[in-house]
Amino acid sequence: MSTVPAPFTADDYRARMERAAATAAGAGLAGVIVAPGPDLVWLTGYRPTAVTERLTVLVLAAGQDPVLVVPTLEAPDAERAAGAPALTLRDWTDGKDPYAVTAPLLDASGRFAVSDNAWAMHLLGLQKALPGTSYVSLTEALPMLRAVKDAAELERLAAAGAAADAAYEEIQKVTFAGRKETDVAADLAALLRRFGHSQVDFTVVGSGPNGANPHHEAGERVIEHGDMVVLDFGGLLHGYGSDTSRTVHVGEPTDEERRVHDIVREAQAAGCAAVRPGAACQDVDRAARAVITDAGYGAYFIHRTGHGIGVTTHEPPYMIEGEEQPLVPGMCFSVEPGIYLPGRFGVRIEDIVTVTDDGGRRLNATAREMAIVD
Amino acid sequence: MSTVPAPFTADDYRARMERAAATAAGAGLAGVIVAPGPDLVWLTGYRPTAVTERLTVLVLAAGQDPVLVVPTLEAPDAERAAGAPALTLRDWTDGKDPYAVTAPLLDASGRFAVSDNAWAMHLLGLQKALPGTSYVSLTEALPMLRAVKDAAELERLAAAGAAADAAYEEIQKVTFAGRKETDVAADLAALLRRFGHSQVDFTVVGSGPNGANPHHEAGERVIEHGDMVVLDFGGLLHGYGSDTSRTVHVGEPTDEERRVHDIVREAQAAGCAAVRPGAACQDVDRAARAVITDAGYGAYFIHRTGHGIGVTTHEPPYMIEGEEQPLVPGMCFSVEPGIYLPGRFGVRIEDIVTVTDDGGRRLNATAREMAIVD
Repeated sequence: MSTVPAPFTADDYRARMERAAATAAGAGLAGVIVAPGPDLVWLTGYRPTAVTERLTVLVLAAGQDPVLVVPTLEAPDAERAAGAPALTLRDWTDGKDPYAVTAPLLDASGRFAVSDNAWAMHLLGLQKALPGTSYVSLTEALPMLRAVKDAAELERLAAAGAAADAAYEEIQKVTFAGRKETDVAADLAALLRRFGHSQVDFTVVGSGPNGANPHHEAGERVIEHGDMVVLDFGGLLHGYGSDTSRTVHVGEPTDEERRVHDIVREAQAAGCAAVRPGAACQDVDRAARAVITDAGYGAYFIHRTGHGIGVTTHEPPYMIEGEEQPLVPGMCFSVEPGIYLPGRFGVRIEDIVTVTDDGGRRLNATAREMAIVD
Repeated sequence: MSTVPAPFTADDYRARMERAAATAAGAGLAGVIVAPGPDLVWLTGYRPTAVTERLTVLVLAAGQDPVLVVPTLEAPDAERAAGAPALTLRDWTDGKDPYAVTAPLLDASGRFAVSDNAWAMHLLGLQKALPGTSYVSLTEALPMLRAVKDAAELERLAAAGAAADAAYEEIQKVTFAGRKETDVAADLAALLRRFGHSQVDFTVVGSGPNGANPHHEAGERVIEHGDMVVLDFGGLLHGYGSDTSRTVHVGEPTDEERRVHDIVREAQAAGCAAVRPGAACQDVDRAARAVITDAGYGAYFIHRTGHGIGVTTHEPPYMIEGEEQPLVPGMCFSVEPGIYLPGRFGVRIEDIVTVTDDGGRRLNATAREMAIVD
């Protein structure tokens, strides 16, 4: 549906690794310890086939070449990663102590940022091997490491958003009434793939009372005429995420349903309008929440307003009360207020928004008005 | 293809949680901290829709009711887990400190086992909230917690093995030569699902030189007449794992290919024959390895001989030099020696074996002789 962006090169990954090491040093850290997952993908392009108990870890420290410690039998895969030319591989064989291999790479009295999703067993292994080291989660220490997207990343996020939009346009044409939520979810997944997604992360179809559980995925419930249906779907395209919500109605809504939907739509617009460089993340949450609270539904908006998106569909920065991080051009995140009426129905509307030099720009462009479906 | 086993009940999960707490106490631990993943599934039947930075954790301690800490918006899902009636839910809302919610459940000076795959950020959060606590990985502290399977678990593992066997019988009928590895891998995945798997974890198709990389999955390489092809496939059926390898040949093999395959087959048989109660895990590795070493290929068997299987396809006990854990009836693990000749080809043969009262019993029954495919 769109041109394939040029792949990231070893130089791109080298620059990211150098920036991470320098940022860590600037924060008084001895380095960064990166586990398989989004941090490692972003820094090296390497994604192990499976994440297991075998230690794979990238060690970054200012003034030191990046070293990727990998199990010997995964070394051939690691060597093929786009970022491999920018780092040194050090492999360890089954039966050897991988922490003993890693320890010499670390300042024995240093404080390190470690990937949030590193396995506890590996952190404990490092703590034991080097009792003088200390650790802080990467998101706590360097929350904004991956938050500001460059032009090549924005291009990918925009493509993912456009593909999600195309999927939403198509899903409105399918039949909802009389089919199970899982059937519509399967349609959504197929549409995301048809429009270029390589991975589908979630396809929420929350019909009627199920829509009132914001983390309901899709179940066996048969959608009925008269249902409100929350759709929330996303995944990865060219390695970057989409995440969009729209709430549709099967047949004509009641006045109350229309009113609640209007409130959420107004809240979502207010959240988006609050996006500008220098505003705090919590300002986006406050702007959206104020609309819902003022309308008397504050108790039914039971989650934060948004989350960052990039090589994952869920990452910093978070649009939440208490998050004072200023917005910076290039940040990308969801704005997704909702109202959830237990046992009855829910409404959520969500776009991905990027911070521009003078405000915010939505990466989703489909109508936010309540669509009526069959 | 087989009858659906009766689901595990709240009583089953209660018994497992009590056993875990008692085992931990017996090992001098204050309790067990369980993260989403296989430990949590096994103990409670609960599998969160997505594993995110939001803390979900089960706290088990002898003499204390099990408590599952969950994000508020995931509480409805957690309440539906089969094990939920056997535990207390404690939810926390976005913006609150989840470690402050968890800390009162822990002995502030206790030592706890923590799920291997718990996120480092959560372990760091607990370490910070309760500086007097200490931690050890669950696999290090209580490696055999899930290792001995009961009759209901064995029934599921046997069903998964039978389904994998059925998939292997069928895959021999497809055309290999001229098709990409990924095509045959897709066939294998479809077969696993057709024979009842709800989840496919891996479908390795390593043709020719790709077979010499034991962790190669499947790629764009077109399989050629004359290729040796390693097939290694598995996933979950009724929540329990399958994992089987056979090495087939496209057309007639050379004498060397046949000889290497025979050595691996003999090694695999020797590994299986070493399985009996009281033997050490490393004895299984030694028995298989001796055959390959004696044949002069020791340098080309570059991984351990096996790993446990249960609610995951990869767990303790490990059949590896240095693992002195005695085998106990009910343990289930792979026996999968291999020979990998770089740049040329590889051979691996794998069955799941369970320890019986007087030996071992394979849960895979298909022929281990080299099959000739088209």
